[in-house]
Amino acid sequence: MAEADVINVDLEIIVHGVQGRSKPELRLWLRMLSTTKLISQEIRRRLRAEFGATLPQFDLMAQLYREKDGLRLGELSKRTMVTNGNVTGLVERLEADGYIQRLTPDADRRVTVAKLTDNGTIFFATMAAAHERWLQEMMADVDSRMISGLWSEIGAVKVSASNHLSGAAFE
Amino acid sequence: MAEADVINVDLEIIVHGVQGRSKPELRLWLRMLSTTKLISQEIRRRLRAEFGATLPQFDLMAQLYREKDGLRLGELSKRTMVTNGNVTGLVERLEADGYIQRLTPDADRRVTVAKLTDNGTIFFATMAAAHERWLQEMMADVDSRMISGLWSEIGAVKVSASNHLSGAAFE
Repeated sequence: MAEADVINVDLEIIVHGVQGRSKPELRLWLRMLSTTKLISQEIRRRLRAEFGATLPQFDLMAQLYREKDGLRLGELSKRTMVTNGNVTGLVERLEADGYIQRLTPDADRRVTVAKLTDNGTIFFATMAAAHERWLQEMMADVDSRMISGLWSEIGAVKVSASNHLSGAAFE
Repeated sequence: MAEADVINVDLEIIVHGVQGRSKPELRLWLRMLSTTKLISQEIRRRLRAEFGATLPQFDLMAQLYREKDGLRLGELSKRTMVTNGNVTGLVERLEADGYIQRLTPDADRRVTVAKLTDNGTIFFATMAAAHERWLQEMMADVDSRMISGLWSEIGAVKVSASNHLSGAAFE
């Protein structure tokens, strides 16, 4: 806790100090970033401590939970922003644990699809419920109207950022 | 742009769908996370396109910019949350580019300190100014009072999360 806190506070101060008086947009960004990192680190810690799971495993199972028919590995890689090689490693590990199975649908024998086993479905649902509870805990001191307000206002930031992406022009 | 957008929207929908009706805290968290990822990806893209730099390089130089006397590699590793091995690689690369120098202060010859060269200082200041401008651009459609309001309200989320870390108890 202490370490994460120091690092996050630090991050705000550092870039903050660079230009002396930072623009409000930069200050907001650094605060969003440090808050997201703080909560994300805590979620990683709790997933490991309570379920022996990693965040990439959690994210990957979340994708499969939603797609009852399973997903091809390439598609899983895209959706989790994990490289193909790493997805294969993740899937193999979760398969060994009995949470995932790999299938070759009759329709196309060249294709391999990963899907959750019944055990995997139960395991993920348990983690997802805990994950939701942890977020309620971490935000317990924030007024509930502020939480709804933040959701819609951060939505405005997201829309604005989406409208100003340089995108393919720079790729 | 399209790809980043799909992935981020996806992320919100996915975990959202898991419990049917998600709690407001989970909805807020997924929106914070997807917005942070969206902006972060755009910053990575622009650093690469305009400066041929990576985000870890930018973060590392930000640390050194603040510490005019330089930092030991171990300290740099802690502050950037990059492993020791990777910090060494980053430093070597930036040294080869002439942006960083490694020194052994007279006081303690066993210690190696990294600091920005004059070129590195100018290079970082240029990137930092662009970085600040990009954030203004990306948030251009958001009302300036909303930006200040968000800064303080996300501060409340950060404080609440800090107060509810499991921290060392689970380590």
